[in-house]
Amino acid sequence: MSANSERQIWIYDTTLRDGMQCEGLSVSIEDKLRIARCLDRLGVPFIEGGWPGANPKDVQFFWELQEEPLEQAEIVPFCFTRRPNITAAKDPMLQAIIAAGTRWVTIVGKSWDLHVKEGLKTTLAENLGMVDDTIKYLISQRRRVIYDAEHWFDGYKHNRDYALQTLTAALNAGAEWLVLCDTNGGTLPNEITQIVTDVIKSLPTGIQLGIHTHNDSDTAVANALAAVMAGASMVQGTINGYGERCGNANLCSVIPNLQVKLGYNCIENTQLSKLTETSRFVSEVVNLAPNVHAPFVGNSAFAHKGGMHVSAVERNPLTYEHIEPEQIGNSRRIVVSEQSGASNILAKARSFGIKLEKDNPATKQILNNLKQLEHEGYQFEAAEASFELLVRGALGERQQFFQIKGFKVHCDLVQHLESNLGNGDALATVKITVNGQDILEAAEGIGPVAALDAALRKALTNFYPQIAMFELTDYKVRILNGHTGTAAKTRVLVGSGNGRQRWTTVGVSSNILSASYQAVVDGLEYGLMLHSQAQTEISTSS
Amino acid sequence: MSANSERQIWIYDTTLRDGMQCEGLSVSIEDKLRIARCLDRLGVPFIEGGWPGANPKDVQFFWELQEEPLEQAEIVPFCFTRRPNITAAKDPMLQAIIAAGTRWVTIVGKSWDLHVKEGLKTTLAENLGMVDDTIKYLISQRRRVIYDAEHWFDGYKHNRDYALQTLTAALNAGAEWLVLCDTNGGTLPNEITQIVTDVIKSLPTGIQLGIHTHNDSDTAVANALAAVMAGASMVQGTINGYGERCGNANLCSVIPNLQVKLGYNCIENTQLSKLTETSRFVSEVVNLAPNVHAPFVGNSAFAHKGGMHVSAVERNPLTYEHIEPEQIGNSRRIVVSEQSGASNILAKARSFGIKLEKDNPATKQILNNLKQLEHEGYQFEAAEASFELLVRGALGERQQFFQIKGFKVHCDLVQHLESNLGNGDALATVKITVNGQDILEAAEGIGPVAALDAALRKALTNFYPQIAMFELTDYKVRILNGHTGTAAKTRVLVGSGNGRQRWTTVGVSSNILSASYQAVVDGLEYGLMLHSQAQTEISTSS
Repeated sequence: MSANSERQIWIYDTTLRDGMQCEGLSVSIEDKLRIARCLDRLGVPFIEGGWPGANPKDVQFFWELQEEPLEQAEIVPFCFTRRPNITAAKDPMLQAIIAAGTRWVTIVGKSWDLHVKEGLKTTLAENLGMVDDTIKYLISQRRRVIYDAEHWFDGYKHNRDYALQTLTAALNAGAEWLVLCDTNGGTLPNEITQIVTDVIKSLPTGIQLGIHTHNDSDTAVANALAAVMAGASMVQGTINGYGERCGNANLCSVIPNLQVKLGYNCIENTQLSKLTETSRFVSEVVNLAPNVHAPFVGNSAFAHKGGMHVSAVERNPLTYEHIEPEQIGNSRRIVVSEQSGASNILAKARSFGIKLEKDNPATKQILNNLKQLEHEGYQFEAAEASFELLVRGALGERQQFFQIKGFKVHCDLVQHLESNLGNGDALATVKITVNGQDILEAAEGIGPVAALDAALRKALTNFYPQIAMFELTDYKVRILNGHTGTAAKTRVLVGSGNGRQRWTTVGVSSNILSASYQAVVDGLEYGLMLHSQAQTEISTSS
Repeated sequence: MSANSERQIWIYDTTLRDGMQCEGLSVSIEDKLRIARCLDRLGVPFIEGGWPGANPKDVQFFWELQEEPLEQAEIVPFCFTRRPNITAAKDPMLQAIIAAGTRWVTIVGKSWDLHVKEGLKTTLAENLGMVDDTIKYLISQRRRVIYDAEHWFDGYKHNRDYALQTLTAALNAGAEWLVLCDTNGGTLPNEITQIVTDVIKSLPTGIQLGIHTHNDSDTAVANALAAVMAGASMVQGTINGYGERCGNANLCSVIPNLQVKLGYNCIENTQLSKLTETSRFVSEVVNLAPNVHAPFVGNSAFAHKGGMHVSAVERNPLTYEHIEPEQIGNSRRIVVSEQSGASNILAKARSFGIKLEKDNPATKQILNNLKQLEHEGYQFEAAEASFELLVRGALGERQQFFQIKGFKVHCDLVQHLESNLGNGDALATVKITVNGQDILEAAEGIGPVAALDAALRKALTNFYPQIAMFELTDYKVRILNGHTGTAAKTRVLVGSGNGRQRWTTVGVSSNILSASYQAVVDGLEYGLMLHSQAQTEISTSS
């Protein structure tokens, strides 16, 4: 693998190594494998998988990939140069790297004299020896080497000559890539441009430079772009910008900027259209809520609010969108909110297949309803199913599948105190009316919300057997006025699915159970509505 | 007010106008006033307050500020140029702007020919007339004018000459600032540099240029810096980067980059040290969870994980931190996590004033405990009080103030269904042992967690009257495995306070009430411990 064109940029993903330094993030081996295979499908040529030797989980990870390799990408282990005053061949850390069985290895070494003296507590000459010996040893073991120059930019600013000597040592030992790392994230784009330009002038022509940036100055992406424009041809970063402190360069921004805006090649265009899906998949697997405001891939990245704006973007997207959202697998979204004019309501309703005219008095009623509910803490931006029920209700098109008469929940927490396990520790009773018939049911569940849901399904299932297909797929809780403690208002979002479609509903209350209940009930009603629509379509078409 | 030095950059905050376009964000007039006064204390010279005339809430906001003005900052209303084919004096929108009673007004006009023709549906000449007439009218009303050139960069790329004509029209009409806006956020730093340089060359010398960027390309901050380095002397942005789609340039990053790194003057250094506080205050008021990974002001921005790293940063912060966190009112933080070595545990314990030696067997026990609990879903990164209790427990220094025997919660949701109000709709009973005495108590609350908390306090208050001073200050819920629906594990963080100190505790369970209960109990215990320590200090010192 080598750069065959000036416009080719090699993307090096380090989500599974540097990204895992992100506070609040820790994943299983199985999760790491799922992410690696997802990155492989995205077309990223290099995937840094971890540091076997420092971390037993990572040893296992590389072993699993030897058993069942990736399709396209090179999986790369990461390791420090050997320790001072031993030989590379005798350093057990490097044995673990060899055992990972990869074609490529990334070796990180010190560039900043201060870190050599204070961190490694060795001499500047020995550090150069460590770089040289480690790389030569790996090459003797038929590995190809990427050299990460840690703290490069700080090192350069403190002692340019020594920093350059470390690169020369790596190059002469046989490293194929020299990657300049802004480890502390303090460098600004203008300095990156100037320093990368100087490195290219100072080293032999034809070397392959990479860039690795952190976001401490809020310029990680701009720094990576600046380095590429100055001549670097590899960019290291992470999906969603995960990483220590403020994160690494976000590949979900770097890739479309390079490829769509600056005309470089990173991945195939068909792969680029998987970017949004990749971002969301990774955030799902690592279980961090996705950043809805993320550039390019965020749920709000192509969202349009204000009224005039919405009519304009529908006429000519170019006027309000910097790229076509479809290129990266994202999509335009019309946002429903307090600030919405009637035109938003109409556009949204159209997207549900509801014909709603501007002069229909229901439009005004929906708008007022919406303002009142948002004032109470509801939000329909992420709960479109609840919004659709609201619209259909205002139009007199909302079918009443059941009526709730009452609901009680009882929890006994004693067993929790002892076992901390909680099997069916909550009991719910529900009384509903369906087709004029009163039904009383009780069910147990793990936690009060699961018990509520179970009781409701039990009561409904004889009338609506399709409910067996429905499942709760997501449950999110947001405390609205955190400062007033546990009596604050709670907003609950419930995700539901029927195996083919997914929908989200919302509930708000000062009682978390009541808020959950509203969202669960809306979710069941919406599922029944979808089913009933599907039945109508079948009977109409047959 | 005028730029008296080449190194002076005028910060123009638009959190209260453009920031409010952020999806999920809406605030009351009272909240807007609190934010304006907070920005005033930060030393921001211009605060854009809203668009009176388009929004009745904003009319009221400016009226309140006439009654009780800000200390230092200029409060500025925002408005479009007059509509086509009427005079400015007759446009009711501009009457609302005059009525706002401010010294300065920001007028936004179209720069992009396409928007003039397709959006405004008027001629290019009439648009120039609108800019001219609107600004002249405002000046005749003794207003000073900032001109925001909307879609400037896209306009320039499509029709450079026309875009420049709009600026000239504003300048000739008397605007004191010309602000180039990257409204769609699609421009990259290299283009900003080139275009701003061309504008400065093309317009008369001595003009004052501003920059207004959006983060759709993940380069809003870098774009603002590029414009300043090319000669702009005003930066528009928002606190925490709030704004439509992917947000505006984040002033919490722009200000320290300009002031600490590039040597420009924005605000006083004593004001700069309020930046972190300002960021968190605003996120609190607008009720959006703060971004812990935010550059400069985030809770993780100066957090250190891995073991070696932590010892190094304690020796010489310069080696791992790009600026001193104190400059912006943030602080270094040692993170406790699964990846922590013993050195982190020791550093953390020291910060609690606990002497813990590396060879103490308790250190190993704490580390193992921690790994097990994190595996179950606990996180102590934000719940340091629970971690301290854990450490003290392992050292045999944890005082047992009370023991829990049992806990039951009962909710009747019928009244919710009817009134959606929820007053004391939950009942909790608790059985505890204090000083060998069994206590059974019951209490009602709004929602089950409040009822649990009330019952527990009621049972404890005779023994520990200081509990009356404790309050729940925050309550956060995180669902750990969203994809398994409501039976997923729940992590609860509870914030508590005693009027002088604040602390956070954590609970995890598949039952949300059990998780809440654990965090509430830990919170009470920690408060009692603090009180008992304070008593000891008093008796020792007297």
